Amino acid sequence: MTGLLEDMAHRPAAWLAEPGADSSVTLSSRVRLARNVSGLKYPSSADPETLRKVINYFKSSRERSTTLSKGSFFSSSEINDLDRDFLVERHLISPTFLDGNPNRALLIGPQERVSIMINEEDHVRVQALVAGLDVHTAYKLASEYDDEICKLIDIDYDPDFGFLTTCPTNVGTGMRASVLIHLPGLVLTREIDSVISRLSKLGLVVRGFYGEGSDVLGNLLQVSNQTTLGVSETEILSNIDTTTKQIIEEENIARLRLIEEASNQIEDKVWRAFGILSHARTLSSDEVMNLLSAVRLGISLGRLTEITFSQVNEILLLSQPAHLQKYYGEEMDPDRRDFIRAEMVRAKMKGNMGKENISAPPKK
Amino acid sequence: MTGLLEDMAHRPAAWLAEPGADSSVTLSSRVRLARNVSGLKYPSSADPETLRKVINYFKSSRERSTTLSKGSFFSSSEINDLDRDFLVERHLISPTFLDGNPNRALLIGPQERVSIMINEEDHVRVQALVAGLDVHTAYKLASEYDDEICKLIDIDYDPDFGFLTTCPTNVGTGMRASVLIHLPGLVLTREIDSVISRLSKLGLVVRGFYGEGSDVLGNLLQVSNQTTLGVSETEILSNIDTTTKQIIEEENIARLRLIEEASNQIEDKVWRAFGILSHARTLSSDEVMNLLSAVRLGISLGRLTEITFSQVNEILLLSQPAHLQKYYGEEMDPDRRDFIRAEMVRAKMKGNMGKENISAPPKK
Repeated sequence: MTGLLEDMAHRPAAWLAEPGADSSVTLSSRVRLARNVSGLKYPSSADPETLRKVINYFKSSRERSTTLSKGSFFSSSEINDLDRDFLVERHLISPTFLDGNPNRALLIGPQERVSIMINEEDHVRVQALVAGLDVHTAYKLASEYDDEICKLIDIDYDPDFGFLTTCPTNVGTGMRASVLIHLPGLVLTREIDSVISRLSKLGLVVRGFYGEGSDVLGNLLQVSNQTTLGVSETEILSNIDTTTKQIIEEENIARLRLIEEASNQIEDKVWRAFGILSHARTLSSDEVMNLLSAVRLGISLGRLTEITFSQVNEILLLSQPAHLQKYYGEEMDPDRRDFIRAEMVRAKMKGNMGKENISAPPKK
Repeated sequence: MTGLLEDMAHRPAAWLAEPGADSSVTLSSRVRLARNVSGLKYPSSADPETLRKVINYFKSSRERSTTLSKGSFFSSSEINDLDRDFLVERHLISPTFLDGNPNRALLIGPQERVSIMINEEDHVRVQALVAGLDVHTAYKLASEYDDEICKLIDIDYDPDFGFLTTCPTNVGTGMRASVLIHLPGLVLTREIDSVISRLSKLGLVVRGFYGEGSDVLGNLLQVSNQTTLGVSETEILSNIDTTTKQIIEEENIARLRLIEEASNQIEDKVWRAFGILSHARTLSSDEVMNLLSAVRLGISLGRLTEITFSQVNEILLLSQPAHLQKYYGEEMDPDRRDFIRAEMVRAKMKGNMGKENISAPPKK
């Protein structure tokens, strides 16, 4: 396990590394499908034996499927706390997936495009993640794996309700589609609140970068569907896609307004962020996210050409606590993380993409 | 008048340009002598004719003295508001000197080392300014001019009290000696308050960069003597000199303590200031002073070699509103000043000392 994650730490996640559609506003698109095995109690009320049975069903289905047999499979006992945080930061698992319950398992597909959590809230959760605004591709990818699972395992499906799930809000399609969008323009022009309230009327939910309950850092917001029942997958995808395109348009209008009405202030904000990231000697991950938001805005406005979106994305991910520790192969307390993070950020800002350029000073 | 000041704007003030004694803590030393002409009412109660008489006495004494005849002489009518602010920023006149009363005059000696205000609070105020900690040289310089004046004009002197002045606090020597010191270490270690209260017990007064009532910006403090009566000039100078040397020692101890106990935080503070100054697109003069304080600290600790004390001093002076406008030969509103100031600072931070490197964008 450690070997794989170390390797992953030195490689940007596919959903951040590739330039996706509408990448100046949308970072990534995600689709998650929730499924449960017929005749077995759902995870919240299942005994350990039942949970192990689910894992075994999944394992044996892997032996019979070319698609499912690809990638890396881990049981929860192989994943330590740092690995878990790393996988959460990479958006491959949910924050609650590995909360100590031993009977869980994880499949990470090739290029980390798809991950499958076994015995999270539901028996099986298939998730696909792609760069930019492209929920349809994400759905296609997730479906590829889901179709195999539904073919090989007897999945709970009600002709009236659709797929059955632990939480009633997932019943029906069992699908949640979401996009991660960067909205500094709407935040700075204070239009964001009206956008969020309009989204909730359209049955969409808005959250921070790291899902439910997380703060809105770096003006990064996740928009996902609330409703799963009584609508088709196509309707959900099309709703998310259309609405996101509207938001992107509004965001771009807000950015233009800013640059017309407050050009100096915006350039100042962008360049101060660039200056601090390039020179600070200690940086928290929250501060990095907020500063990178200004830098990203500067790039999208063509005011900052010293750095690219993909550098910004790499810094964003490597700044997260578990990534930083995996990247340097060292467990660090928060003070040391802030110090090493600043060193990493300075090197990456200069375009020194390799670890070899960074000389970590002796530990205190 | 304008011609001279334009020229001065492109040349650092001598007291900031030269490396003085103990220059890592002390920026400059100043001595001011207050004198009044016998038999004439003092400025606060004098009629215009009396004031003009004082100016004429001084003018005619210049004709009879090699020392006094040097430098440039201006009547207050020649000095417009921007010139006045410029001279205040340069510490050549007091902020209240040119408050609209027409019967005032000013002599600026060679290299701006000495300035003589006619009809400020007293009939004659001779001031000398030198770099670093060197009140004795400042006194020697001021005395050179003062001796000539006392020889050529009948000055009010009481055998018991000494020199008579408008404000009783100046009676006696008529002298105020002061040093401008940079105390970031004592401020950051929160020892500054106890230092200031100790100084007041020693008969010394502590003020901000621009004298009485001015804020403490950039951790720059002026220390001067309170008492002028019943002590000799030598005692005042020696008191200021000895006390300043003690403060310097305490400041250096505080800096060492900071670098031992909070090295990362200090370096972070220093480099963030450097990063912001090098990249910001809009800067107020107060912010520049505070950021330069951190940069100055970084230089003195050997942590910052990208910039020198003399660059810092030049930026400090050119950042002041009137200097900035004189330097660019353009009157500017505060917003435009902040914008142009940031441009000037960026260029100077890179070591581009000439104005020709700066391309001011079109006005809004």
